[in-house]
Amino acid sequence: MRIVAGVEYDGSAYHGWQNQTAPPLNTIQFQCQKALSQVANCPIEITCAGRTDKGVHALMQVIHFDTAVKRRMHAWISGANHYLPKDIRLLWAKPLEDSFHARHSAIARRYHYVLYNASIRPALWHKRISWYPAPLNIQTMSIGAQFLIGEHDFSAFRGSDCEAKSTIRNVDYLRLKQIKNCILFQIQANAFLHHMVRNIVGVLIDVGKGKHQPGWVQEVLLSKQRTQASITAPPEGLYLTQVIYPEKWNILPAFESASFFEKEFNVAGSIIC
Amino acid sequence: MRIVAGVEYDGSAYHGWQNQTAPPLNTIQFQCQKALSQVANCPIEITCAGRTDKGVHALMQVIHFDTAVKRRMHAWISGANHYLPKDIRLLWAKPLEDSFHARHSAIARRYHYVLYNASIRPALWHKRISWYPAPLNIQTMSIGAQFLIGEHDFSAFRGSDCEAKSTIRNVDYLRLKQIKNCILFQIQANAFLHHMVRNIVGVLIDVGKGKHQPGWVQEVLLSKQRTQASITAPPEGLYLTQVIYPEKWNILPAFESASFFEKEFNVAGSIIC
Repeated sequence: MRIVAGVEYDGSAYHGWQNQTAPPLNTIQFQCQKALSQVANCPIEITCAGRTDKGVHALMQVIHFDTAVKRRMHAWISGANHYLPKDIRLLWAKPLEDSFHARHSAIARRYHYVLYNASIRPALWHKRISWYPAPLNIQTMSIGAQFLIGEHDFSAFRGSDCEAKSTIRNVDYLRLKQIKNCILFQIQANAFLHHMVRNIVGVLIDVGKGKHQPGWVQEVLLSKQRTQASITAPPEGLYLTQVIYPEKWNILPAFESASFFEKEFNVAGSIIC
Repeated sequence: MRIVAGVEYDGSAYHGWQNQTAPPLNTIQFQCQKALSQVANCPIEITCAGRTDKGVHALMQVIHFDTAVKRRMHAWISGANHYLPKDIRLLWAKPLEDSFHARHSAIARRYHYVLYNASIRPALWHKRISWYPAPLNIQTMSIGAQFLIGEHDFSAFRGSDCEAKSTIRNVDYLRLKQIKNCILFQIQANAFLHHMVRNIVGVLIDVGKGKHQPGWVQEVLLSKQRTQASITAPPEGLYLTQVIYPEKWNILPAFESASFFEKEFNVAGSIIC
């Protein structure tokens, strides 16, 4: 039986999602597989929708795994959460046909990047929001961001160890919102290259601080050269917020659940003061 | 010269505010003194408004220290923040008369306690919000809370290692707000006994889950016996949010600053989704 599940995590303490064997590192995949294997009492291997880097968080990562073990869905959830560290939680689980694949069936991913733009770094958010002290102009950043919307070759925005065969990606939207001293980047694409969001943020920061004009973003894009872009923005501000699948999979409850949790976190953040 | 300053911290990684010598532990006071001593190039000892426990956070702790070293206030702030760990920040600093004392001059302290009341623990807030999975009735909790407002002997709510000479404290307000799945406790008193807020939350949880009627809170209070109360609620949901001083000290900018930062955190929390 194939089971699909939603996972929330604070990535601060982990070497990213993906298992690494040399050297073996503490990853979110490792923790999830270990917990689910304990519930199943036999080895479980999981596949995720989008591999997140070291220090990157997720409001709702989507995973699937195959098992012959029969458990009620509630038992998978509460069992996994019993064995998981407190900074990783299984939010929901449901059975699906074998033709569903957490990564291949996904038609889009959403990420949010949160940048605190003020002179003093926020202590309470030290591993949850990234920080840039000098003033940034969100107007020029937003103009620059427009050049990245649509289907493009994002070679200039891929990390050096990106293994993707194609560098063509389709960005559905890239919105910037200034809320007090924070800049929120909201981006959705069919898929992302390694470090793509963080490299986009890095380029837009260079525009925002006035080092480059907005049109330079297009120059970087067209150059297809990573060396033309800026430094990679740090991971702590990045959140995988949603994975979108075709309606036929009917995993809408998952999205409702995600939405539910988003609201919860929204609330939780807003009342600590 | 006496300097007063505001400090924000995520207490997750520390053994509370107060230095402990046997065994020597990593405390917030230790980190602040080390950083300020590096800026001053000579030993600095600091006094705080309210000692927070291991794992407890602060939006604005107030400290003072005496020094013969002359530095611009900006140099104290940026210098200290250069040496401090990322989860502790000096927010502001200003010189004051020697008769000001961070603890003795304070006329009130405010704390917030955030409790996530849902079946699954929130991974992203694992060290920043406490969690209670079974349903709680905020109406009965709020009725119980009323018995604690005003001047009382809070012996039943003091920690076993509380060293306060008097156990009389005056609670200005104790409000509970249910916002989605979170319960926010807002409490202000002239001062607090050790573990007082967390013991109050523990007692109110016992009322909320139906173990006791609201009137039991008064019974516990009047008993003056710690053994009559409930378990101490965990530290991760507790925030020292503000310290209030007489107007004559004119440290209103500090409160404006705190208010400013509160809004920032409010925003930061609300946009991670």
